[in-house]
Amino acid sequence: MKVLIIGGGGFVGQKLARSLVARGQLDGQAIQSISLVDVVMPASIESAAIAVNSSVCDITDPASIANALDASVTHIFLLAAIVSAHAEEDFDAGMQINMQGVWNVLERARALGSVPKVIFTSSIAVYGGEVPDPITDHSFLNPQGSYGIQKAIGELLLNDYSRKGFVDGRGFRLPTISVRPGKPNRAASSFMSSILREPLNGESAVCPVDDDFLHYYLSPRKCVENLIKGAELAAADLGQNRCMLMPGKTWSIGQLIEALTAVAGPGPAQLIRRESQPDIQRIVKGWRFDFHADKALALGLSADESFQDNVRYYLEDDAPVS
Amino acid sequence: MKVLIIGGGGFVGQKLARSLVARGQLDGQAIQSISLVDVVMPASIESAAIAVNSSVCDITDPASIANALDASVTHIFLLAAIVSAHAEEDFDAGMQINMQGVWNVLERARALGSVPKVIFTSSIAVYGGEVPDPITDHSFLNPQGSYGIQKAIGELLLNDYSRKGFVDGRGFRLPTISVRPGKPNRAASSFMSSILREPLNGESAVCPVDDDFLHYYLSPRKCVENLIKGAELAAADLGQNRCMLMPGKTWSIGQLIEALTAVAGPGPAQLIRRESQPDIQRIVKGWRFDFHADKALALGLSADESFQDNVRYYLEDDAPVS
Repeated sequence: MKVLIIGGGGFVGQKLARSLVARGQLDGQAIQSISLVDVVMPASIESAAIAVNSSVCDITDPASIANALDASVTHIFLLAAIVSAHAEEDFDAGMQINMQGVWNVLERARALGSVPKVIFTSSIAVYGGEVPDPITDHSFLNPQGSYGIQKAIGELLLNDYSRKGFVDGRGFRLPTISVRPGKPNRAASSFMSSILREPLNGESAVCPVDDDFLHYYLSPRKCVENLIKGAELAAADLGQNRCMLMPGKTWSIGQLIEALTAVAGPGPAQLIRRESQPDIQRIVKGWRFDFHADKALALGLSADESFQDNVRYYLEDDAPVS
Repeated sequence: MKVLIIGGGGFVGQKLARSLVARGQLDGQAIQSISLVDVVMPASIESAAIAVNSSVCDITDPASIANALDASVTHIFLLAAIVSAHAEEDFDAGMQINMQGVWNVLERARALGSVPKVIFTSSIAVYGGEVPDPITDHSFLNPQGSYGIQKAIGELLLNDYSRKGFVDGRGFRLPTISVRPGKPNRAASSFMSSILREPLNGESAVCPVDDDFLHYYLSPRKCVENLIKGAELAAADLGQNRCMLMPGKTWSIGQLIEALTAVAGPGPAQLIRRESQPDIQRIVKGWRFDFHADKALALGLSADESFQDNVRYYLEDDAPVS
């Protein structure tokens, strides 16, 4: 069994690869190789038992995909995307990478005839607007931006390519991942990790919203666990609609900070500076938070128990060694 | 103001063109020209006042679209599609015409920068499966076939191209059109017009389902009226989600036959032969019929008053002169 991680250079792809290396098996079979591909060369990962290789692949180019994906690949994790702010700024890049790129991968798989499993990361950005709460697996997909539109199209394609028997797809709408490792970025959601990560690393961070701001979160560790569980689900248990919410939990900013203090003591929370940022508030207050991931929960995927877990996992998995 | 009807050779396109010729105006302005384009040369339509021209256009080919669509076009009716049975049989043709073709038209409009109105025909085939009744504008799109997937993707594209200001789109999910003029075709829904049209023309027809079979119908005349009303809606009244159900009415086969008899006397109904067709039954019994087109109704679109209207309109508009 051979695994291909498209978007293998991103933090989810890297964590997924490390988790697969540690498990050594997937779907009850030993993993022979893991290929990490991304638009820039993914960081290499060491393994004594499994051949892990990194290479460059541009999913906007069918020839590049053909190089990366042959009939021996049994599991494709399709994580590659440009993020929402980028897709909004550069419409063509978003369409080419987030929509055409997904189509290209599915077309390559179809041409091979090998019916690989395709585990696709969609996003809660497919929801929004006038759709009533709570948001469930059966809520109307009403994306408010190009990124969400492109992800919704990816879901539809995955469903039809699965129904036709070209791939065995499963798609998951990811909650906001927190505590995300690395540096702050220009995403409007960046503060949802920054206000925890930076203080845990002894640095200050800005919180642009009030304590009662609610959002839907999942830790990177649980996200990777869910992707692996998602890969191992039996097709017969999924039904024709292969896409669903990935479980998360809804917390307020106040609850995030309480969890930070409960795990790391009172010091870090003092490094959070309050600064109203109307531009950020305007964006994030339009986002939804009342999600019910019933289908995925019934299939055995899960959320973090409490946000203290999210904080602890960051310290265990990602915090720089001081 | 110049109108382009893509799919202008089909019966809806032809009726729409004739209706626009009769009105002479659209959106409060005189129509200067109507271009009918289709993959085979559309039948020409006579008009003393308006330049109506027909030409061949293949929407899978961007150069062909560029020939048909220039910056002077103010209204594009985007009706072109291959039907569900065809899209299911020839997956590539469906993807190229029903999905890539729509994208190509939107891309051409975007490149022109002229922000035309785009009136797009989607279908109730975007609904299905495990989604609970009643089906509303906010029901989860859960297409059960490639045609529905391609239409759902067209809707998402139309929404985002509208949000970005590239076009001014409005999309309508058409009910099953009955009484459809012309000959029976291989669509599973073909009998829903045949059992009325053929008897009205003195020919026999086969009804493969029972009297209590329910479905959601609209006459061709009302469909065209709604498309024109849809074109004239103010963008501000539509909101960000530009796509909605087109109003129809739910009737049983028994009610269709009652209406036939009420309008045309007892003779035609005697030409309907009952013949159980398990293949057809299996397909059409999976279709939905409990639709609520609240948004379109609130915006002034409408359904036929009774199915007697559908029968009468066929006799007035389409029945061969005997």
